[in-house]
Amino acid sequence: VAEGEDLVDAATSVEIEPVELLVAGHNVEPALLAEVSALGHPARVIGVFRRGDLRRGAVPDVGVALWRVGDPGNVGTLIRAADALGPAFVALSPDSADPTGPRALRASMGAVFRVPLVDLEAAPRPWIALVPAGGKTLAHVAGVAKATFVLGAEREGLPAEILLRCDEVATIPLTAGADSLNVAMAGTIALYEHARSMRVEKK
Amino acid sequence: VAEGEDLVDAATSVEIEPVELLVAGHNVEPALLAEVSALGHPARVIGVFRRGDLRRGAVPDVGVALWRVGDPGNVGTLIRAADALGPAFVALSPDSADPTGPRALRASMGAVFRVPLVDLEAAPRPWIALVPAGGKTLAHVAGVAKATFVLGAEREGLPAEILLRCDEVATIPLTAGADSLNVAMAGTIALYEHARSMRVEKK
Repeated sequence: VAEGEDLVDAATSVEIEPVELLVAGHNVEPALLAEVSALGHPARVIGVFRRGDLRRGAVPDVGVALWRVGDPGNVGTLIRAADALGPAFVALSPDSADPTGPRALRASMGAVFRVPLVDLEAAPRPWIALVPAGGKTLAHVAGVAKATFVLGAEREGLPAEILLRCDEVATIPLTAGADSLNVAMAGTIALYEHARSMRVEKK
Repeated sequence: VAEGEDLVDAATSVEIEPVELLVAGHNVEPALLAEVSALGHPARVIGVFRRGDLRRGAVPDVGVALWRVGDPGNVGTLIRAADALGPAFVALSPDSADPTGPRALRASMGAVFRVPLVDLEAAPRPWIALVPAGGKTLAHVAGVAKATFVLGAEREGLPAEILLRCDEVATIPLTAGADSLNVAMAGTIALYEHARSMRVEKK
């Protein structure tokens, strides 16, 4: 359910059409639309889409795989980052937040309609695990044409069985004594660093 | 008002002492503490601090200056990024979100007690404006020992009078046709890029 013209336009601009389009004063009473709206300022347009219509298709060369990232704001933010710094994909493990839930959808700013959501098993190698400490410096390993950056939830991190399936382990250098970055910031930095490294390689 | 042991510990570990410390079952009835708590799962500890006790002191060589960034989540996230990728400062214009409000405090994860909040006029030169398009590539200008990255609010951006006071204008290269990054992601990338460039310079 996409509330607001910006979100609905993001879908239709990539030819994903709503199953239902509710427009205040057109086919729905404004008061009724306001009642079902999840927003503080109720949207005047709500589009209802099928999950199955979201982009699958070709897998881009780079992306992030999220392991049990339950915060929908972080999932939406990373989908937005994959759109802005990509083209990049997002792979979500079971128990990650639903990318089509209201908070993720709003944080993604419509990017969920453009970014391919792929299956982890289809994510290209190498898989580069991002851990808070102890890995190789991110900038030293991100300069590969294809890559999947694998990130865990903020508190739990990545379990051993996922780490063992990764080809590299990388760390974003942090200030001594500082707390870690959140998963959305870490994933955004990984996608930025990959794009930057690729531009340097091409020179 | 800092809710929860993690936040209160973040303060006391840098020798900022609470004016009041409310501990459930110790000096306050648990039910009463739960009633004043802003959290879903009420904290068992609430510390009340003086704004004037927050760190001022020496200005680090790098930081972000936020122009009318009203979203407290973004302000808190950038304070956390300044802590993790610094040492870095945060400068806030009037009409920016209160860094000591509940949402900013939670997003900062206690970093607000460690990161110096400085006055814009004390922020070191060059001031590097970050704009969504048209500036120099960030990686080409971030490699300077001292720098202040100046960011505007998501929709409004930076007004002309601020842009004119900046020494450089930089842009994070984005995918063609993609929406922009949010201000928290852009500022985090700038701090990362500065730290990365400095490490390369030192080699």
